[in-house]
Amino acid sequence: MRSTYPLPYQPQAVTPFITAVPSEEVHSDAIHIIGFPFDGTTSFRPGSRLGPSALREASLGLESYSPYLRRDLEDLTIYDLGNLPFYPSKPELIHQHFWDLAENIPLKEQNIRFLFLGGEHSISLAPLKVYLNQYPDLVLIHLDAHTDLRESFLMDRYSHASIIRRALDFFGSNHRLLQYGIRSGTAEEFQWMEENKTLMRSLNDLLKEIEAVPDHRPIYLTLDLDFFDPAYLPGTGTPEAGGEDFHSFMKIVKLLTQKNLVGADVVELAPMIDPTGNSNCFASKIVRELLLAFR
Amino acid sequence: MRSTYPLPYQPQAVTPFITAVPSEEVHSDAIHIIGFPFDGTTSFRPGSRLGPSALREASLGLESYSPYLRRDLEDLTIYDLGNLPFYPSKPELIHQHFWDLAENIPLKEQNIRFLFLGGEHSISLAPLKVYLNQYPDLVLIHLDAHTDLRESFLMDRYSHASIIRRALDFFGSNHRLLQYGIRSGTAEEFQWMEENKTLMRSLNDLLKEIEAVPDHRPIYLTLDLDFFDPAYLPGTGTPEAGGEDFHSFMKIVKLLTQKNLVGADVVELAPMIDPTGNSNCFASKIVRELLLAFR
Amino acid sequence: MRSTYPLPYQPQAVTPFITAVPSEEVHSDAIHIIGFPFDGTTSFRPGSRLGPSALREASLGLESYSPYLRRDLEDLTIYDLGNLPFYPSKPELIHQHFWDLAENIPLKEQNIRFLFLGGEHSISLAPLKVYLNQYPDLVLIHLDAHTDLRESFLMDRYSHASIIRRALDFFGSNHRLLQYGIRSGTAEEFQWMEENKTLMRSLNDLLKEIEAVPDHRPIYLTLDLDFFDPAYLPGTGTPEAGGEDFHSFMKIVKLLTQKNLVGADVVELAPMIDPTGNSNCFASKIVRELLLAFR
Amino acid sequence: MRSTYPLPYQPQAVTPFITAVPSEEVHSDAIHIIGFPFDGTTSFRPGSRLGPSALREASLGLESYSPYLRRDLEDLTIYDLGNLPFYPSKPELIHQHFWDLAENIPLKEQNIRFLFLGGEHSISLAPLKVYLNQYPDLVLIHLDAHTDLRESFLMDRYSHASIIRRALDFFGSNHRLLQYGIRSGTAEEFQWMEENKTLMRSLNDLLKEIEAVPDHRPIYLTLDLDFFDPAYLPGTGTPEAGGEDFHSFMKIVKLLTQKNLVGADVVELAPMIDPTGNSNCFASKIVRELLLAFR
Amino acid sequence: MRSTYPLPYQPQAVTPFITAVPSEEVHSDAIHIIGFPFDGTTSFRPGSRLGPSALREASLGLESYSPYLRRDLEDLTIYDLGNLPFYPSKPELIHQHFWDLAENIPLKEQNIRFLFLGGEHSISLAPLKVYLNQYPDLVLIHLDAHTDLRESFLMDRYSHASIIRRALDFFGSNHRLLQYGIRSGTAEEFQWMEENKTLMRSLNDLLKEIEAVPDHRPIYLTLDLDFFDPAYLPGTGTPEAGGEDFHSFMKIVKLLTQKNLVGADVVELAPMIDPTGNSNCFASKIVRELLLAFR
Amino acid sequence: MRSTYPLPYQPQAVTPFITAVPSEEVHSDAIHIIGFPFDGTTSFRPGSRLGPSALREASLGLESYSPYLRRDLEDLTIYDLGNLPFYPSKPELIHQHFWDLAENIPLKEQNIRFLFLGGEHSISLAPLKVYLNQYPDLVLIHLDAHTDLRESFLMDRYSHASIIRRALDFFGSNHRLLQYGIRSGTAEEFQWMEENKTLMRSLNDLLKEIEAVPDHRPIYLTLDLDFFDPAYLPGTGTPEAGGEDFHSFMKIVKLLTQKNLVGADVVELAPMIDPTGNSNCFASKIVRELLLAFR
Repeated sequence: MRSTYPLPYQPQAVTPFITAVPSEEVHSDAIHIIGFPFDGTTSFRPGSRLGPSALREASLGLESYSPYLRRDLEDLTIYDLGNLPFYPSKPELIHQHFWDLAENIPLKEQNIRFLFLGGEHSISLAPLKVYLNQYPDLVLIHLDAHTDLRESFLMDRYSHASIIRRALDFFGSNHRLLQYGIRSGTAEEFQWMEENKTLMRSLNDLLKEIEAVPDHRPIYLTLDLDFFDPAYLPGTGTPEAGGEDFHSFMKIVKLLTQKNLVGADVVELAPMIDPTGNSNCFASKIVRELLLAFR
Repeated sequence: MRSTYPLPYQPQAVTPFITAVPSEEVHSDAIHIIGFPFDGTTSFRPGSRLGPSALREASLGLESYSPYLRRDLEDLTIYDLGNLPFYPSKPELIHQHFWDLAENIPLKEQNIRFLFLGGEHSISLAPLKVYLNQYPDLVLIHLDAHTDLRESFLMDRYSHASIIRRALDFFGSNHRLLQYGIRSGTAEEFQWMEENKTLMRSLNDLLKEIEAVPDHRPIYLTLDLDFFDPAYLPGTGTPEAGGEDFHSFMKIVKLLTQKNLVGADVVELAPMIDPTGNSNCFASKIVRELLLAFR
Repeated sequence: MRSTYPLPYQPQAVTPFITAVPSEEVHSDAIHIIGFPFDGTTSFRPGSRLGPSALREASLGLESYSPYLRRDLEDLTIYDLGNLPFYPSKPELIHQHFWDLAENIPLKEQNIRFLFLGGEHSISLAPLKVYLNQYPDLVLIHLDAHTDLRESFLMDRYSHASIIRRALDFFGSNHRLLQYGIRSGTAEEFQWMEENKTLMRSLNDLLKEIEAVPDHRPIYLTLDLDFFDPAYLPGTGTPEAGGEDFHSFMKIVKLLTQKNLVGADVVELAPMIDPTGNSNCFASKIVRELLLAFR
Repeated sequence: MRSTYPLPYQPQAVTPFITAVPSEEVHSDAIHIIGFPFDGTTSFRPGSRLGPSALREASLGLESYSPYLRRDLEDLTIYDLGNLPFYPSKPELIHQHFWDLAENIPLKEQNIRFLFLGGEHSISLAPLKVYLNQYPDLVLIHLDAHTDLRESFLMDRYSHASIIRRALDFFGSNHRLLQYGIRSGTAEEFQWMEENKTLMRSLNDLLKEIEAVPDHRPIYLTLDLDFFDPAYLPGTGTPEAGGEDFHSFMKIVKLLTQKNLVGADVVELAPMIDPTGNSNCFASKIVRELLLAFR
Repeated sequence: MRSTYPLPYQPQAVTPFITAVPSEEVHSDAIHIIGFPFDGTTSFRPGSRLGPSALREASLGLESYSPYLRRDLEDLTIYDLGNLPFYPSKPELIHQHFWDLAENIPLKEQNIRFLFLGGEHSISLAPLKVYLNQYPDLVLIHLDAHTDLRESFLMDRYSHASIIRRALDFFGSNHRLLQYGIRSGTAEEFQWMEENKTLMRSLNDLLKEIEAVPDHRPIYLTLDLDFFDPAYLPGTGTPEAGGEDFHSFMKIVKLLTQKNLVGADVVELAPMIDPTGNSNCFASKIVRELLLAFR
Repeated sequence: MRSTYPLPYQPQAVTPFITAVPSEEVHSDAIHIIGFPFDGTTSFRPGSRLGPSALREASLGLESYSPYLRRDLEDLTIYDLGNLPFYPSKPELIHQHFWDLAENIPLKEQNIRFLFLGGEHSISLAPLKVYLNQYPDLVLIHLDAHTDLRESFLMDRYSHASIIRRALDFFGSNHRLLQYGIRSGTAEEFQWMEENKTLMRSLNDLLKEIEAVPDHRPIYLTLDLDFFDPAYLPGTGTPEAGGEDFHSFMKIVKLLTQKNLVGADVVELAPMIDPTGNSNCFASKIVRELLLAFR
């Protein structure tokens, strides 16, 4: 039996992600897109609040078919729940909206999957709290240029630079963290990753770790787009030279198609920074591939 | 006797505003520049956090002499106290830093004047609370495209769209508000201005009102740069067509040179929006003229 | 009795123009927005195809209230019919879609008004054919920098530079043409305007002519945004120095609120050309005022 | 004996491609540059009409010597025939101009080679019809991000997205198609390429195929610049992540210097999209290498 | 009898200014365009070296007819002599090229007029030395935002900021200087203008002075484009708020059509600064009007 | 014993490079940053004069820790001596300022190291003359896209395109030149490099050569940022496709940490060209790694 759950908020205007269907309800056995237009703790260059809209618009230039995965969005059931309300200085209210929505929804039992569109990385707190709670054996894959492990940053414990640290607050003994692409942080943060063996030293190391995850074990991917080299995605707030490329990312995605991806977020697209608009095109292709990676 | 007051915070790097002297102390009988790099409640296009740095840098292209006022910055004593610390999501801490600094300083007695560089308009709360408290007969001139009279905006009572409403919370019976340039707001906000006779209908009306202010009565000018038509200053977050030009502004400034300007702020320059950099040049010229307007 | 007429085409994704309601039907006693994403005859700088989307998006930054007209969009009934299908090289198909829709709709009898969002100026052919046919006494106000009177341009009789010439093909003896803002064309085109007395020499001349139009006589306004000086609206394909400003335009609009405006189009916004995005903001404010000018 | 053939059209202003000589005649035993300023079927972001001018201008920043091929443009005889006339909405007229020129010129016998500068990819129809007709054993190398195999796109059978499909209409039994770089299309298009074995799976596969082409067999290269990763060439209408780099391309060019390249086109440079101007520099270097690849 | 004088240098590639004819000779009874691509003393934002090319290119978007002057470029004989050679750090060589050309040409007797395209303002030294020498009663009209009267600037006596000072070195007793638009300089420079009565206080004052010039007396106009408000021409190195508009300029030009304009230069267009390209369009329209102002 | 040497010039305003200390004195046993804001011989696209300021500003977005080298800027003693005075057309004066400073300072004996921030490549002449003189066995590593070996360019023997040629004028018999990344020049320049075996054919060749340098032998690195592919650093005057990436550079830097790097310059950042600002971020990260490479 199919279930639906109405939204506790009024979603803003929706430009469909290619074949997605605008909806004000969560549906069982389906994939859902939600936008988090928030960049209130951004410390360098702001503007990721415009990410969700830019991703949806740029998707109009995409084909629905992926020659990499040989899958087509037209074969999936995707709902777009629009953006959560925009409160530039009140992230706790935005998060609460999502928690109100998700607390009564048994994601696993109803086979409900979400793809979250940021916004800055701090928005991941809302989904991660829910997923870590509902999936006690969740594997969290963190692709990023930055460690995001600060206890607090610029006087804010819920900063974009603290999101993985905050997620760890909800970690249970069977949760697992895999970090890759990280190339910026403090000496202490790098030391922590070393001691806790969370940082994958090479793509092969990461692929091997993912390969070893049992097929039924739930995986959540949090993708800070500055994981990619700024040459490929200039439109991000904190560009960091020496990043990854599209092909490396696709090796991860191809592997995920054989695993149990249950949720993902794509954050830190800052459209204003890239006047060519190409960053939006790049990121929306990334979103397409992730949507197709859901079983 | 000259007094100095040390800063309670560590100022960030300072690029002098032409002839200004970097300092970590407030000096009697002097003008002081302070930057407020904050844009955390911005609802449309962010980036005014970069305003203070951009204004100082663009000042390097200015002459120190104003042919409009026939005055020269080299004849003034100006200190640049740098920027207040940057906490992207904690405006209350930034404001507190300024209050800690100013609460023990008798601005009037020591003839200490400030020019504040925003940041978004909400930063005016810090100086306005101090000035309204220390000057019970202050005239507040509000030049802006927007009413800024909302009780709350996007769930924030301290939003940039509420700054004049918040200032009114500190108004005593002898305070006075003059608004000019306003061309955007809700029907209710316009009705309030009409009922309270705060909105000047023409430049001449405003000039007459300023003319009538006694020469010793203290005046504070809060200038949201979107007061100007976006043709002249494209680099602002919420551009509003049909604005004012440089010459109208200079008529106000010329009049102020004959009055008792005791403080001013210049807010809402968003450098990233204008790739020509000309908005920074325009705004830094405005700052020069305002500095020269202090007695 | 209220009537509705279903669209003969599938409208593309809709971002509401502030308070407009997405719809797939034309409604009696209502105002309707339709986008024409076409720029296929553009001879200088292309990109006005993106105008309709950019106008709707920028409208999110607008207040619904106009202090100029003291009217509020919330008091109107506006439907957004989305964009006509995009065929980059087949304008005749786009026009036909609109003719299919409109040929059976008695605009006057059902009090149905349209605001068309371009696209380049050639898109006005679709509405003008319908309006000139249904309103035998229509007054056509043409605000533009260019004469648009060429018999043919770059081998195309339906070029953006020929739209007024093409409209004249449908003129009956009781139709009337008023042109204002024109400052570019060939010597022949200017001679034609002089001989036919269509070119208003000053804003006052235009205002007097409009004032003299009987209150019930239908008026259609075709506004090429390069009517405005490029300082105010840089984002247009063929900028022409020495243009008009917002206040001049508002004098026309204020007068139109007392007349019988039955249709209008706003064309030639080319968003890619202006990286500040301010042109979109300017043009969407213009659209707001025009919507409020309908009775 | 040397022959010359006058142009049937008046070429527009010519900025030389480094050492090229402006000419209004086609010369035997020589290389010729022709620009096709057309982008009338472009479905995403327009502006490739400006490609030919931008390529010529950017060539002023190039050295005439290639250290990759150890050849120098100064050792070649290159004529620049300017641009074909610009009719934004009448591609058939542009094509006809070229056919009028080429139909009486025996390319092979007179050893006349052309390099065509687009413009969007649909412009290749003009040269391909001529080349496929005059060279019954032509090998067509198609470097692109997109399949371009649609029977029709947005109601146009001559769309940029249909150019290879249209070329196939002229294919004889001894023509050969090699496609490489393709990473976007519909499932059906990819299936067609698989069934017809036109898609090279790797650079090595392509190089082997070219290696196997007999040295005298004529080769035509059609290069859609979105073949390259958008990191290297941001200025193109339909960027597609995961593309090729300069070094891969040079491996192909080096091999072609040993073969019989008889014609080539370089299309889809859209200068307005890349404000750095670097895309023009990149593409003009590509053109230099291709010119040097002619025997 | 018509005379021609060959160029002593090889002109670079020429894009015609609409109807101008590329030439390597100076012709009697004709107007000549010469570009000076030099910006080597620019102290703020460089790039005016690209001005001449940008002006010629943008002219392709112009009509040849001016509705302001009711004159048409097609009725004039204009030759384009291309650009002088580009030596980024050797202005003396560029100037010498022009002096070699002009020293043997009797401008007045042969009715030879020049329009010079900058480049920065220092390029005016080459023509001014020639004109002041050949026309002992020349009236020099200087339209600019800056005084340009420094004896030396940044260690260079031939700086852009010293050009009028350097011109004064060649002034004889019957030469006359009129300055207008000036709004930036040192106190000393403004004092000099006051003492020498060179600064016109209003447009009317300037128009009266020009009106009083006898019809046969030769006039040279040096136009630094930052004379215009940066809203109209953002693309200039040293923008200065509070400038003039197109209509004020046209009042001057209209008056000049009745006088004896013998030479002019248009300097300080810096195309890279304005990504919209509109500054180029604005400036090329200015050039058109100036060309039409020659008798 | 520690020595200090006062500056012979007044340094301009300094924004610290992260942890650097502004100073007006040269200190023994310390690293010093000096900016050379000069681009007066630039032949293609100007603007590298703004490089020093842009590098310092962008450094505010950097971590002080390098995970590549596992070193932290906080562990070093770095002084920032500000910029040398800016004379746009008088490079000889700028160079002389540095020579006045350095001629009495025994770099080797006092263990004084410099990192120079350009400016165009010609600025390297000032440091290279000093270093080649004080270190008779210096190894000069030249990373660049261009040969820079022209005897003279555009009439200037001290052009950016001649800097390595000029450095050779000071070469003694024990000096050594290693060039890598070079991919543009004349046939003659490439022939010279071949004959003199200065051009490394691969990264491995370069690494082997550096490996073989004795640990105490002094090395100076001159890095023209166009060494990198323009995809990674778009903001440079003369972009050249097919360049190096961050990882290749880091292999060189890692090796240098084990050698005796005594000086370096980083030149040709042109901030205006890249509106994203990412080039500044990239280059400042490069500077961080080079600072950390000093022993």
